[in-house]
Amino acid sequence: MTINQISQVAIVGGTHGNELIGVYLIKKFKQFPDLIKRPSFKTLSLLANPRAFEAGRRYIETDLNRCFNIQDLNTPMLIQYEQLLAKVIYQQLQKSQVDFLIDLHSSTANMGLTILLGNDHPFNLRLAAYLCSINSSVRVLQTKSTQKNNRLRSISELGITIEVGPVAQGVLDAGLFHKTEKLIAAILDYLEQYNQNQAPQSPGTLTLYYPLESIDFPRNEAGEILGMIHPSLEGNDYLALNPGEQMFVNFDGSVVVYQGKTTVYPVFINESAYWEKGIAMYLTSKQQLNCSKNFEA
Amino acid sequence: MTINQISQVAIVGGTHGNELIGVYLIKKFKQFPDLIKRPSFKTLSLLANPRAFEAGRRYIETDLNRCFNIQDLNTPMLIQYEQLLAKVIYQQLQKSQVDFLIDLHSSTANMGLTILLGNDHPFNLRLAAYLCSINSSVRVLQTKSTQKNNRLRSISELGITIEVGPVAQGVLDAGLFHKTEKLIAAILDYLEQYNQNQAPQSPGTLTLYYPLESIDFPRNEAGEILGMIHPSLEGNDYLALNPGEQMFVNFDGSVVVYQGKTTVYPVFINESAYWEKGIAMYLTSKQQLNCSKNFEA
Repeated sequence: MTINQISQVAIVGGTHGNELIGVYLIKKFKQFPDLIKRPSFKTLSLLANPRAFEAGRRYIETDLNRCFNIQDLNTPMLIQYEQLLAKVIYQQLQKSQVDFLIDLHSSTANMGLTILLGNDHPFNLRLAAYLCSINSSVRVLQTKSTQKNNRLRSISELGITIEVGPVAQGVLDAGLFHKTEKLIAAILDYLEQYNQNQAPQSPGTLTLYYPLESIDFPRNEAGEILGMIHPSLEGNDYLALNPGEQMFVNFDGSVVVYQGKTTVYPVFINESAYWEKGIAMYLTSKQQLNCSKNFEA
Repeated sequence: MTINQISQVAIVGGTHGNELIGVYLIKKFKQFPDLIKRPSFKTLSLLANPRAFEAGRRYIETDLNRCFNIQDLNTPMLIQYEQLLAKVIYQQLQKSQVDFLIDLHSSTANMGLTILLGNDHPFNLRLAAYLCSINSSVRVLQTKSTQKNNRLRSISELGITIEVGPVAQGVLDAGLFHKTEKLIAAILDYLEQYNQNQAPQSPGTLTLYYPLESIDFPRNEAGEILGMIHPSLEGNDYLALNPGEQMFVNFDGSVVVYQGKTTVYPVFINESAYWEKGIAMYLTSKQQLNCSKNFEA
Protein backbone atom coordinates (compact mmCIF):
# COMPACT_ATOMS: atom_id res chain seq x y z
CA MET A 1 0.00 0.00 0.00
CA THR A 2 1.32 3.39 -0.95
CA ILE A 3 -1.20 5.62 0.79
CA ASN A 4 -1.34 6.60 4.40
CA GLN A 5 -4.22 6.06 6.72
CA ILE A 6 -7.51 7.81 6.03
CA SER A 7 -7.87 10.57 8.63
CA GLN A 8 -10.67 12.75 7.37
CA VAL A 9 -13.69 11.69 5.31
CA ALA A 10 -16.18 14.12 3.78
CA ILE A 11 -19.70 13.16 2.71
CA VAL A 12 -21.28 15.78 0.46
CA GLY A 13 -24.92 15.96 -0.65
CA GLY A 14 -27.03 18.54 -2.41
CA THR A 15 -24.29 19.45 -4.88
CA HIS A 16 -27.37 19.58 -7.08
CA GLY A 17 -30.15 21.20 -5.06
CA ASN A 18 -33.02 19.12 -6.44
CA GLU A 19 -31.40 15.72 -5.88
CA LEU A 20 -33.08 15.16 -2.56
CA ILE A 21 -31.71 11.78 -1.50
CA GLY A 22 -28.27 13.34 -0.98
CA VAL A 23 -29.74 16.43 0.67
CA TYR A 24 -31.76 14.47 3.22
CA LEU A 25 -29.00 11.94 3.91
CA ILE A 26 -26.79 14.89 4.90
CA LYS A 27 -29.59 16.28 7.08
CA LYS A 28 -29.95 12.83 8.68
CA PHE A 29 -26.19 12.53 9.29
CA LYS A 30 -26.15 15.97 10.91
CA GLN A 31 -28.99 14.90 13.19
CA PHE A 32 -27.51 11.48 13.95
CA PRO A 33 -23.73 11.98 13.61
CA ASP A 34 -22.99 8.61 15.19
CA LEU A 35 -24.12 7.00 11.92
CA ILE A 36 -20.99 8.23 10.13
CA LYS A 37 -18.55 8.07 13.07
CA ARG A 38 -15.81 5.46 12.99
CA PRO A 39 -12.99 5.04 15.54
CA SER A 40 -9.99 5.67 13.30
CA PHE A 41 -11.05 8.72 11.26
CA LYS A 42 -13.24 11.81 11.37
CA THR A 43 -16.20 12.31 9.05
CA LEU A 44 -17.71 15.64 8.12
CA SER A 45 -20.99 16.04 6.27
CA LEU A 46 -21.75 18.98 3.99
CA LEU A 47 -24.88 20.23 2.26
CA ALA A 48 -23.14 21.77 -0.75
CA ASN A 49 -25.72 24.09 -2.29
CA PRO A 50 -28.41 24.92 0.29
CA ARG A 51 -29.61 27.90 -1.72
CA ALA A 52 -30.33 25.74 -4.77
CA PHE A 53 -32.06 23.24 -2.47
CA GLU A 54 -34.27 26.02 -1.07
CA ALA A 55 -35.09 27.10 -4.62
CA GLY A 56 -35.90 23.49 -5.60
CA ARG A 57 -33.43 23.67 -8.46
CA ARG A 58 -30.28 21.96 -9.66
CA TYR A 59 -28.38 25.24 -9.33
CA ILE A 60 -28.91 28.97 -9.11
CA GLU A 61 -26.65 30.24 -11.90
CA THR A 62 -24.49 27.42 -13.17
CA ASP A 63 -23.88 23.72 -12.49
CA LEU A 64 -21.85 23.57 -9.25
CA ASN A 65 -20.53 20.15 -10.21
CA ARG A 66 -18.68 21.64 -13.20
CA CYS A 67 -16.91 24.37 -11.19
CA PHE A 68 -14.06 22.47 -9.51
CA ASN A 69 -11.38 22.51 -12.18
CA ILE A 70 -8.32 23.82 -10.36
CA GLN A 71 -7.72 26.50 -12.99
CA ASP A 72 -11.29 27.79 -12.66
CA LEU A 73 -10.98 27.80 -8.87
CA ASN A 74 -7.94 30.05 -9.26
CA THR A 75 -9.56 32.45 -11.76
CA PRO A 76 -10.82 35.51 -9.85
CA MET A 77 -13.10 36.68 -12.67
CA LEU A 78 -15.34 33.61 -12.38
CA ILE A 79 -17.96 35.06 -10.06
CA GLN A 80 -21.26 33.31 -10.83
CA TYR A 81 -22.98 32.10 -7.67
CA GLU A 82 -21.83 28.49 -7.94
CA GLN A 83 -18.35 29.52 -9.08
CA LEU A 84 -17.96 31.44 -5.81
CA LEU A 85 -19.53 28.60 -3.85
CA ALA A 86 -17.06 26.13 -5.38
CA LYS A 87 -14.11 28.25 -4.26
CA VAL A 88 -15.48 28.34 -0.70
CA ILE A 89 -16.21 24.58 -0.59
CA TYR A 90 -12.75 23.84 -1.98
CA GLN A 91 -11.09 25.96 0.73
CA GLN A 92 -13.25 24.36 3.41
CA LEU A 93 -12.42 20.77 2.38
CA GLN A 94 -8.74 21.58 1.85
CA LYS A 95 -8.54 23.17 5.29
CA SER A 96 -10.14 20.07 6.82
CA GLN A 97 -7.50 17.98 5.03
CA VAL A 98 -10.11 15.67 3.55
CA ASP A 99 -8.46 12.55 2.22
CA PHE A 100 -11.56 10.59 1.18
CA LEU A 101 -14.66 12.14 -0.36
CA ILE A 102 -18.14 10.77 -1.14
CA ASP A 103 -20.41 12.96 -3.28
CA LEU A 104 -24.09 11.98 -3.40
CA HIS A 105 -26.19 12.35 -6.54
CA SER A 106 -29.42 10.98 -7.96
CA SER A 107 -30.68 10.58 -11.50
CA THR A 108 -33.98 10.32 -13.35
CA ALA A 109 -32.31 7.51 -15.32
CA ASN A 110 -32.41 3.90 -14.15
CA MET A 111 -28.86 4.05 -12.76
CA GLY A 112 -29.59 1.73 -9.83
CA LEU A 113 -26.67 1.98 -7.41
CA THR A 114 -23.80 3.40 -9.42
CA ILE A 115 -20.26 4.19 -8.29
CA LEU A 116 -18.68 6.89 -10.46
CA LEU A 117 -14.90 6.88 -10.45
CA GLY A 118 -13.11 10.07 -11.46
CA ASN A 119 -9.69 8.44 -11.74
CA ASP A 120 -8.13 4.98 -11.71
CA HIS A 121 -6.40 5.12 -8.37
CA PRO A 122 -5.92 1.52 -7.15
CA PHE A 123 -7.47 2.37 -3.78
CA ASN A 124 -10.69 3.52 -5.43
CA LEU A 125 -10.71 0.49 -7.77
CA ARG A 126 -10.24 -1.90 -4.85
CA LEU A 127 -13.04 -0.23 -2.92
CA ALA A 128 -15.34 -0.38 -5.95
CA ALA A 129 -14.56 -4.07 -6.47
CA TYR A 130 -15.28 -4.75 -2.82
CA LEU A 131 -18.65 -2.92 -2.99
CA CYS A 132 -19.62 -4.97 -6.06
CA SER A 133 -18.68 -8.15 -4.21
CA ILE A 134 -21.02 -7.42 -1.30
CA ASN A 135 -23.88 -6.07 -3.46
CA SER A 136 -24.21 -7.51 -6.95
CA SER A 137 -26.49 -4.66 -8.06
CA VAL A 138 -23.68 -2.07 -7.76
CA ARG A 139 -22.35 -0.82 -11.11
CA VAL A 140 -19.07 1.03 -11.60
CA LEU A 141 -18.69 3.74 -14.21
CA GLN A 142 -15.21 5.11 -14.97
CA THR A 143 -15.84 8.73 -15.90
CA LYS A 144 -12.35 10.19 -15.81
CA SER A 145 -12.30 10.77 -19.58
CA THR A 146 -15.48 12.90 -19.53
CA GLN A 147 -14.99 15.00 -16.45
CA LYS A 148 -12.09 17.41 -17.04
CA ASN A 149 -11.42 17.28 -13.29
CA ASN A 150 -14.21 19.79 -12.74
CA ARG A 151 -16.37 17.69 -10.43
CA LEU A 152 -16.59 18.30 -6.68
CA ARG A 153 -15.26 14.80 -6.10
CA SER A 154 -11.99 15.73 -7.83
CA ILE A 155 -11.01 17.78 -4.74
CA SER A 156 -9.76 14.49 -3.28
CA GLU A 157 -7.79 11.88 -5.19
CA LEU A 158 -9.42 9.21 -3.05
CA GLY A 159 -13.17 9.05 -3.20
CA ILE A 160 -16.18 8.27 -5.31
CA THR A 161 -19.47 9.71 -6.48
CA ILE A 162 -22.64 7.74 -5.79
CA GLU A 163 -25.35 8.09 -8.43
CA VAL A 164 -28.71 6.43 -7.70
CA GLY A 165 -31.90 6.22 -9.72
CA PRO A 166 -34.46 6.33 -11.12
CA VAL A 167 -35.96 9.07 -8.99
CA ALA A 168 -37.58 12.32 -10.13
CA GLN A 169 -35.98 15.59 -9.19
CA GLY A 170 -37.49 17.13 -6.08
CA VAL A 171 -38.64 13.75 -4.76
CA LEU A 172 -37.44 11.36 -2.06
CA ASP A 173 -37.63 7.64 -2.78
CA ALA A 174 -37.35 5.77 0.51
CA GLY A 175 -36.14 2.53 -1.09
CA LEU A 176 -33.23 4.26 -2.85
CA PHE A 177 -32.59 6.43 0.21
CA HIS A 178 -32.05 3.36 2.39
CA LYS A 179 -29.94 1.57 -0.22
CA THR A 180 -27.70 4.63 -0.55
CA GLU A 181 -27.38 4.91 3.21
CA LYS A 182 -26.37 1.24 3.42
CA LEU A 183 -23.76 1.73 0.69
CA ILE A 184 -22.27 4.70 2.55
CA ALA A 185 -22.08 2.64 5.75
CA ALA A 186 -20.29 -0.14 3.84
CA ILE A 187 -17.76 2.37 2.51
CA LEU A 188 -17.09 3.81 5.96
CA ASP A 189 -16.70 0.30 7.39
CA TYR A 190 -14.26 -0.53 4.62
CA LEU A 191 -12.20 2.60 5.36
CA GLU A 192 -12.16 1.69 9.04
CA GLN A 193 -10.96 -1.82 8.28
CA TYR A 194 -8.35 -0.42 5.91
CA ASN A 195 -7.03 1.82 8.65
CA GLN A 196 -6.85 -1.23 10.92
CA ASN A 197 -4.87 -3.10 8.24
CA GLN A 198 -7.85 -5.42 7.89
CA ALA A 199 -9.30 -4.26 4.58
CA PRO A 200 -11.47 -7.03 3.15
CA GLN A 201 -10.03 -8.88 0.20
CA SER A 202 -11.35 -7.52 -3.12
CA PRO A 203 -12.42 -10.03 -5.77
CA GLY A 204 -10.20 -10.99 -8.69
CA THR A 205 -11.93 -8.90 -11.33
CA LEU A 206 -14.01 -5.74 -11.55
CA THR A 207 -16.57 -4.96 -14.25
CA LEU A 208 -16.08 -1.37 -15.38
CA TYR A 209 -18.16 0.70 -17.81
CA TYR A 210 -16.20 3.27 -19.84
CA PRO A 211 -18.04 6.13 -21.62
CA LEU A 212 -17.36 6.06 -25.36
CA GLU A 213 -19.49 9.00 -26.48
CA SER A 214 -22.60 10.96 -25.60
CA ILE A 215 -25.65 10.75 -27.86
CA ASP A 216 -27.98 13.72 -28.29
CA PHE A 217 -31.67 13.58 -29.12
CA PRO A 218 -32.58 13.89 -32.81
CA ARG A 219 -32.93 17.63 -33.48
CA ASN A 220 -33.92 19.94 -36.31
CA GLU A 221 -31.75 22.78 -37.57
CA ALA A 222 -33.23 25.15 -34.98
CA GLY A 223 -32.07 22.78 -32.25
CA GLU A 224 -35.55 21.58 -31.28
CA ILE A 225 -35.77 17.91 -30.41
CA LEU A 226 -37.58 15.69 -32.88
CA GLY A 227 -38.04 12.56 -30.80
CA MET A 228 -37.86 10.67 -27.54
CA ILE A 229 -36.02 7.69 -26.09
CA HIS A 230 -37.62 4.62 -27.68
CA PRO A 231 -39.80 2.70 -25.20
CA SER A 232 -37.74 -0.44 -25.81
CA LEU A 233 -34.60 1.40 -24.60
CA GLU A 234 -36.18 3.36 -21.73
CA GLY A 235 -34.84 2.19 -18.36
CA ASN A 236 -32.30 -0.18 -19.98
CA ASP A 237 -29.25 1.48 -18.46
CA TYR A 238 -26.25 -0.90 -18.38
CA LEU A 239 -27.99 -3.40 -20.69
CA ALA A 240 -26.61 -4.30 -24.12
CA LEU A 241 -27.63 -2.17 -27.10
CA ASN A 242 -26.79 -4.00 -30.30
CA PRO A 243 -26.28 -2.60 -33.82
CA GLY A 244 -29.65 -1.99 -35.48
CA GLU A 245 -31.63 -1.82 -32.22
CA GLN A 246 -34.06 1.03 -31.54
CA MET A 247 -32.82 4.18 -29.79
CA PHE A 248 -35.32 6.97 -30.50
CA VAL A 249 -38.89 7.27 -31.70
CA ASN A 250 -39.54 10.57 -33.46
CA PHE A 251 -42.73 12.59 -33.18
CA ASP A 252 -43.42 11.81 -36.84
CA GLY A 253 -43.41 8.09 -35.98
CA SER A 254 -40.03 7.27 -37.55
CA VAL A 255 -37.49 5.32 -35.53
CA VAL A 256 -33.76 5.94 -35.09
CA VAL A 257 -31.68 2.79 -34.62
CA TYR A 258 -28.20 2.40 -33.22
CA GLN A 259 -25.81 2.67 -36.16
CA GLY A 260 -22.63 1.51 -34.42
CA LYS A 261 -20.82 -1.72 -35.25
CA THR A 262 -20.32 -3.09 -31.77
CA THR A 263 -22.51 -3.76 -28.76
CA VAL A 264 -22.56 -0.87 -26.29
CA TYR A 265 -24.09 -0.31 -22.85
CA PRO A 266 -26.05 2.97 -22.56
CA VAL A 267 -26.19 4.82 -19.24
CA PHE A 268 -27.87 8.02 -18.04
CA ILE A 269 -30.72 7.27 -20.48
CA ASN A 270 -33.22 10.16 -20.29
CA GLU A 271 -31.47 11.98 -17.44
CA SER A 272 -33.50 15.15 -17.06
CA ALA A 273 -30.56 17.38 -16.14
CA TYR A 274 -28.62 16.39 -19.27
CA TRP A 275 -31.19 17.77 -21.72
CA GLU A 276 -29.58 21.20 -21.41
CA LYS A 277 -26.19 19.62 -22.06
CA GLY A 278 -27.39 17.95 -25.28
CA ILE A 279 -27.07 14.43 -23.88
CA ALA A 280 -29.83 11.84 -24.24
CA MET A 281 -27.52 9.07 -22.99
CA TYR A 282 -23.90 7.97 -22.81
CA LEU A 283 -22.78 4.87 -24.64
CA THR A 284 -20.24 2.84 -22.70
CA SER A 285 -18.08 -0.21 -23.22
CA LYS A 286 -18.10 -2.97 -20.62
CA GLN A 287 -14.73 -4.29 -19.60
CA GLN A 288 -13.34 -6.71 -17.05
CA LEU A 289 -10.43 -5.30 -15.12
CA ASN A 290 -7.93 -7.82 -13.84
CA CYS A 291 -7.29 -6.79 -10.28
CA SER A 292 -3.86 -8.29 -9.95
CA LYS A 293 -2.56 -6.05 -12.75
CA ASN A 294 -4.40 -2.84 -11.91
CA PHE A 295 -4.86 -2.71 -8.21
CA GLU A 296 -1.23 -2.05 -7.36
CA ALA A 297 -0.31 1.60 -7.14
CA MET B 1 -79.22 16.73 -24.35
CA THR B 2 -79.16 20.27 -23.09
CA ILE B 3 -75.97 21.48 -24.70
CA ASN B 4 -75.43 22.61 -28.23
CA GLN B 5 -72.94 21.19 -30.62
CA ILE B 6 -69.25 21.51 -29.88
CA SER B 7 -67.82 24.11 -32.26
CA GLN B 8 -64.40 24.95 -30.89
CA VAL B 9 -62.06 22.67 -28.96
CA ALA B 10 -58.84 23.83 -27.30
CA ILE B 11 -55.97 21.52 -26.36
CA VAL B 12 -53.53 23.17 -23.94
CA GLY B 13 -50.12 21.86 -22.88
CA GLY B 14 -47.22 23.31 -20.95
CA THR B 15 -49.45 24.98 -18.38
CA HIS B 16 -46.57 23.75 -16.22
CA GLY B 17 -43.36 24.36 -18.16
CA ASN B 18 -41.52 21.23 -16.98
CA GLU B 19 -44.30 18.76 -17.78
CA LEU B 20 -42.93 17.87 -21.17
CA ILE B 21 -45.45 15.35 -22.46
CA GLY B 22 -48.02 18.14 -22.81
CA VAL B 23 -45.47 20.55 -24.24
CA TYR B 24 -44.31 18.18 -26.97
CA LEU B 25 -47.81 16.96 -27.80
CA ILE B 26 -48.71 20.59 -28.52
CA LYS B 27 -45.56 20.97 -30.64
CA LYS B 28 -46.52 17.78 -32.49
CA PHE B 29 -50.10 19.00 -33.08
CA LYS B 30 -48.78 22.30 -34.41
CA GLN B 31 -46.53 20.41 -36.81
CA PHE B 32 -49.20 17.89 -37.81
CA PRO B 33 -52.51 19.77 -37.39
CA ASP B 34 -54.46 17.05 -39.21
CA LEU B 35 -54.08 14.89 -36.10
CA ILE B 36 -56.54 17.07 -34.17
CA LYS B 37 -58.81 18.07 -37.06
CA ARG B 38 -62.34 16.71 -37.15
CA PRO B 39 -65.07 17.59 -39.67
CA SER B 40 -67.64 19.15 -37.33
CA PHE B 41 -65.54 21.40 -35.09
CA LYS B 42 -62.34 23.42 -35.01
CA THR B 43 -59.43 22.57 -32.69
CA LEU B 44 -56.78 25.00 -31.52
CA SER B 45 -53.62 23.96 -29.70
CA LEU B 46 -51.84 26.21 -27.22
CA LEU B 47 -48.49 26.04 -25.44
CA ALA B 48 -49.57 27.88 -22.30
CA ASN B 49 -46.31 28.91 -20.62
CA PRO B 50 -43.47 28.86 -23.17
CA ARG B 51 -41.25 31.00 -20.95
CA ALA B 52 -41.47 28.48 -18.09
CA PHE B 53 -40.76 25.71 -20.60
CA GLU B 54 -37.66 27.54 -21.82
CA ALA B 55 -36.55 27.94 -18.21
CA GLY B 56 -37.19 24.23 -17.53
CA ARG B 57 -39.43 25.11 -14.60
CA ARG B 58 -43.02 24.65 -13.51
CA TYR B 59 -43.52 28.41 -13.55
CA ILE B 60 -41.61 31.67 -13.49
CA GLU B 61 -43.25 33.49 -10.56
CA THR B 62 -46.37 31.61 -9.49
CA ASP B 63 -48.31 28.48 -10.45
CA LEU B 64 -50.21 29.38 -13.65
CA ASN B 65 -52.73 26.64 -12.95
CA ARG B 66 -53.92 28.48 -9.83
CA CYS B 67 -54.50 31.83 -11.59
CA PHE B 68 -57.83 31.31 -13.37
CA ASN B 69 -60.33 32.16 -10.66
CA ILE B 70 -62.63 34.68 -12.33
CA GLN B 71 -62.21 37.17 -9.48
CA ASP B 72 -58.43 37.02 -9.78
CA LEU B 73 -58.63 37.45 -13.54
CA ASN B 74 -60.58 40.65 -12.92
CA THR B 75 -58.22 42.03 -10.28
CA PRO B 76 -55.85 44.53 -11.96
CA MET B 77 -53.34 44.52 -9.10
CA LEU B 78 -52.44 40.85 -9.66
CA ILE B 79 -49.43 41.35 -11.90
CA GLN B 80 -47.07 38.44 -11.29
CA TYR B 81 -45.88 36.92 -14.57
CA GLU B 82 -48.32 34.02 -14.57
CA GLN B 83 -51.17 36.20 -13.30
CA LEU B 84 -50.76 38.37 -16.40
CA LEU B 85 -50.36 35.31 -18.61
CA ALA B 86 -53.61 33.85 -17.24
CA LYS B 87 -55.51 37.02 -18.15
CA VAL B 88 -54.15 36.86 -21.70
CA ILE B 89 -54.91 33.13 -22.12
CA TYR B 90 -58.41 33.65 -20.73
CA GLN B 91 -59.08 36.44 -23.24
CA GLN B 92 -57.67 34.36 -26.07
CA LEU B 93 -59.80 31.30 -25.31
CA GLN B 94 -62.91 33.40 -24.66
CA LYS B 95 -62.43 35.22 -27.96
CA SER B 96 -62.12 31.88 -29.76
CA GLN B 97 -65.37 30.80 -28.09
CA VAL B 98 -63.86 27.57 -26.85
CA ASP B 99 -66.59 25.21 -25.71
CA PHE B 100 -64.50 22.15 -24.89
CA LEU B 101 -61.05 22.28 -23.29
CA ILE B 102 -58.38 19.63 -22.68
CA ASP B 103 -55.48 20.61 -20.41
CA LEU B 104 -52.44 18.29 -20.44
CA HIS B 105 -50.40 17.58 -17.32
CA SER B 106 -47.96 15.00 -16.05
CA SER B 107 -47.01 13.85 -12.57
CA THR B 108 -44.08 12.23 -10.81
CA ALA B 109 -46.73 10.13 -9.03
CA ASN B 110 -48.00 6.85 -10.49
CA MET B 111 -51.20 8.44 -11.80
CA GLY B 112 -51.35 6.26 -14.91
CA LEU B 113 -53.92 7.80 -17.26
CA THR B 114 -56.07 10.03 -15.09
CA ILE B 115 -59.03 12.20 -16.10
CA LEU B 116 -59.49 15.12 -13.70
CA LEU B 117 -63.00 16.54 -13.65
CA GLY B 118 -63.46 20.07 -12.36
CA ASN B 119 -67.23 19.86 -12.15
CA ASP B 120 -70.00 17.26 -12.43
CA HIS B 121 -71.49 18.32 -15.71
CA PRO B 122 -73.28 15.28 -17.21
CA PHE B 123 -71.49 15.74 -20.53
CA ASN B 124 -68.09 15.44 -18.83
CA LEU B 125 -69.27 12.46 -16.76
CA ARG B 126 -70.56 10.66 -19.84
CA LEU B 127 -67.30 11.29 -21.68
CA ALA B 128 -65.28 10.04 -18.69
CA ALA B 129 -67.43 6.90 -18.45
CA TYR B 130 -66.94 6.28 -22.16
CA LEU B 131 -63.15 6.67 -21.90
CA CYS B 132 -63.08 4.18 -19.00
CA SER B 133 -65.11 1.75 -21.09
CA ILE B 134 -62.63 1.76 -23.97
CA ASN B 135 -59.51 1.75 -21.78
CA SER B 136 -59.78 0.01 -18.42
CA SER B 137 -56.62 1.70 -17.12
CA VAL B 138 -58.24 5.16 -17.18
CA ARG B 139 -59.04 6.57 -13.71
CA VAL B 140 -61.39 9.48 -13.02
CA LEU B 141 -60.75 11.92 -10.20
CA GLN B 142 -63.45 14.44 -9.29
CA THR B 143 -61.49 17.46 -8.08
CA LYS B 144 -64.18 20.15 -7.99
CA SER B 145 -64.04 20.40 -4.19
CA THR B 146 -60.31 21.17 -4.12
CA GLN B 147 -59.90 23.54 -7.02
CA LYS B 148 -61.67 26.82 -6.21
CA ASN B 149 -62.29 27.24 -9.95
CA ASN B 150 -58.77 28.52 -10.35
CA ARG B 151 -57.54 25.95 -12.85
CA LEU B 152 -57.03 26.71 -16.53
CA ARG B 153 -59.60 24.04 -17.39
CA SER B 154 -62.29 26.02 -15.53
CA ILE B 155 -62.37 28.51 -18.42
CA SER B 156 -64.75 26.09 -20.12
CA GLU B 157 -67.60 24.27 -18.40
CA LEU B 158 -67.07 21.36 -20.76
CA GLY B 159 -63.66 19.77 -20.67
CA ILE B 160 -61.20 17.73 -18.68
CA THR B 161 -57.63 17.72 -17.46
CA ILE B 162 -55.44 14.75 -18.36
CA GLU B 163 -52.82 13.85 -15.75
CA VAL B 164 -50.34 11.10 -16.65
CA GLY B 165 -47.51 9.52 -14.70
CA PRO B 166 -45.13 8.54 -13.36
CA VAL B 167 -42.66 10.65 -15.27
CA ALA B 168 -39.95 12.94 -13.92
CA GLN B 169 -40.18 16.64 -14.56
CA GLY B 170 -38.12 17.72 -17.55
CA VAL B 171 -38.33 14.28 -19.17
CA LEU B 172 -40.31 12.74 -22.03
CA ASP B 173 -41.56 9.19 -21.60
CA ALA B 174 -42.47 7.83 -25.03
CA GLY B 175 -44.85 5.19 -23.67
CA LEU B 176 -46.92 7.74 -21.72
CA PHE B 177 -46.64 10.22 -24.60
CA HIS B 178 -48.27 7.78 -27.01
CA LYS B 179 -50.95 6.71 -24.50
CA THR B 180 -51.86 10.37 -23.90
CA GLU B 181 -51.99 11.04 -27.63
CA LYS B 182 -54.32 8.06 -28.10
CA LEU B 183 -56.58 9.30 -25.29
CA ILE B 184 -56.82 12.74 -26.90
CA ALA B 185 -57.73 11.17 -30.25
CA ALA B 186 -60.47 9.13 -28.54
CA ILE B 187 -61.89 12.32 -26.97
CA LEU B 188 -61.89 14.17 -30.29
CA ASP B 189 -63.57 11.19 -31.98
CA TYR B 190 -66.19 11.13 -29.23
CA LEU B 191 -66.91 14.86 -29.70
CA GLU B 192 -67.22 14.34 -33.43
CA GLN B 193 -69.70 11.48 -32.94
CA TYR B 194 -71.58 13.58 -30.41
CA ASN B 195 -71.93 16.37 -32.94
CA GLN B 196 -73.23 13.80 -35.45
CA ASN B 197 -75.80 12.62 -32.87
CA GLN B 198 -73.95 9.34 -32.77
CA ALA B 199 -72.20 9.60 -29.39
CA PRO B 200 -71.26 6.10 -28.23
CA GLN B 201 -73.33 4.70 -25.39
CA SER B 202 -71.64 5.19 -22.01
CA PRO B 203 -71.64 2.26 -19.57
CA GLY B 204 -74.10 1.98 -16.70
CA THR B 205 -71.75 3.04 -13.93
CA LEU B 206 -68.62 5.15 -13.51
CA THR B 207 -65.99 4.69 -10.80
CA LEU B 208 -65.10 8.11 -9.39
CA TYR B 209 -62.44 9.03 -6.84
CA TYR B 210 -63.29 11.99 -4.59
CA PRO B 211 -60.54 13.79 -2.62
CA LEU B 212 -61.25 13.70 1.12
CA GLU B 213 -58.18 15.50 2.44
CA SER B 214 -54.55 16.20 1.65
CA ILE B 215 -51.84 14.67 3.83
CA ASP B 216 -48.57 16.47 4.45
CA PHE B 217 -45.22 14.87 5.22
CA PRO B 218 -44.31 14.51 8.90
CA ARG B 219 -42.57 17.78 9.84
CA ASN B 220 -40.82 19.30 12.83
CA GLU B 221 -41.75 22.65 14.34
CA ALA B 222 -39.46 24.47 11.92
CA GLY B 223 -41.39 22.95 9.03
CA GLU B 224 -38.60 20.61 7.93
CA ILE B 225 -39.78 17.20 6.77
CA LEU B 226 -39.00 14.27 9.04
CA GLY B 227 -39.73 11.38 6.72
CA MET B 228 -40.59 9.95 3.31
CA ILE B 229 -43.40 8.03 1.67
CA HIS B 230 -43.12 4.46 2.99
CA PRO B 231 -41.79 2.06 0.33
CA SER B 232 -44.91 -0.09 0.73
CA LEU B 233 -47.09 2.88 -0.28
CA GLU B 234 -44.83 4.32 -3.01
CA GLY B 235 -46.46 4.03 -6.44
CA ASN B 236 -49.72 2.68 -4.98
CA ASP B 237 -51.90 5.49 -6.31
CA TYR B 238 -55.58 4.44 -6.53
CA LEU B 239 -54.95 1.30 -4.45
CA ALA B 240 -56.64 0.71 -1.09
CA LEU B 241 -54.93 2.07 2.04
CA ASN B 242 -56.44 0.45 5.11
CA PRO B 243 -56.43 1.67 8.73
CA GLY B 244 -53.10 0.82 10.37
CA GLU B 245 -51.16 0.46 7.12
CA GLN B 246 -47.82 2.21 6.61
CA MET B 247 -47.75 5.73 5.12
CA PHE B 248 -44.38 7.29 6.00
CA VAL B 249 -40.98 6.11 7.17
CA ASN B 250 -39.15 8.75 9.18
CA PHE B 251 -35.43 9.43 9.01
CA ASP B 252 -35.15 8.16 12.58
CA GLY B 253 -36.56 4.81 11.45
CA SER B 254 -40.02 5.21 12.99
CA VAL B 255 -43.07 4.54 10.87
CA VAL B 256 -46.28 6.58 10.55
CA VAL B 257 -49.37 4.50 9.86
CA TYR B 258 -52.73 5.58 8.48
CA GLN B 259 -54.87 6.52 11.49
CA GLY B 260 -58.23 6.78 9.72
CA LYS B 261 -61.13 4.44 10.32
CA THR B 262 -62.10 3.63 6.75
CA THR B 263 -60.28 2.43 3.67
CA VAL B 264 -59.10 5.26 1.42
CA TYR B 265 -57.42 5.46 -1.98
CA PRO B 266 -54.36 7.76 -2.06
CA VAL B 267 -53.47 9.67 -5.23
CA PHE B 268 -50.68 12.06 -6.20
CA ILE B 269 -48.37 10.10 -3.87
CA ASN B 270 -44.96 11.83 -3.87
CA GLU B 271 -45.84 14.39 -6.56
CA SER B 272 -42.74 16.57 -6.71
CA ALA B 273 -44.61 19.82 -7.41
CA TYR B 274 -46.82 19.39 -4.33
CA TRP B 275 -43.96 19.49 -1.82
CA GLU B 276 -44.13 23.29 -1.83
CA LYS B 277 -47.86 23.08 -1.24
CA GLY B 278 -47.46 20.83 1.82
CA ILE B 279 -49.06 17.83 0.14
CA ALA B 280 -47.50 14.35 0.25
CA MET B 281 -50.67 12.79 -1.18
CA TYR B 282 -54.43 13.17 -1.38
CA LEU B 283 -56.68 10.59 0.22
CA THR B 284 -59.78 9.84 -1.82
CA SER B 285 -62.94 7.80 -1.51
CA LYS B 286 -63.93 5.46 -4.32
CA GLN B 287 -67.55 5.59 -5.39
CA GLN B 288 -69.68 4.09 -8.10
CA LEU B 289 -71.81 6.65 -9.86
CA ASN B 290 -75.07 5.38 -11.31
CA CYS B 291 -75.19 6.85 -14.76
CA SER B 292 -78.95 6.80 -15.17
CA LYS B 293 -79.35 9.13 -12.19
CA ASN B 294 -76.43 11.45 -12.77
CA PHE B 295 -75.90 11.69 -16.45
CA GLU B 296 -78.99 13.76 -17.18
CA ALA B 297 -78.49 17.51 -17.06
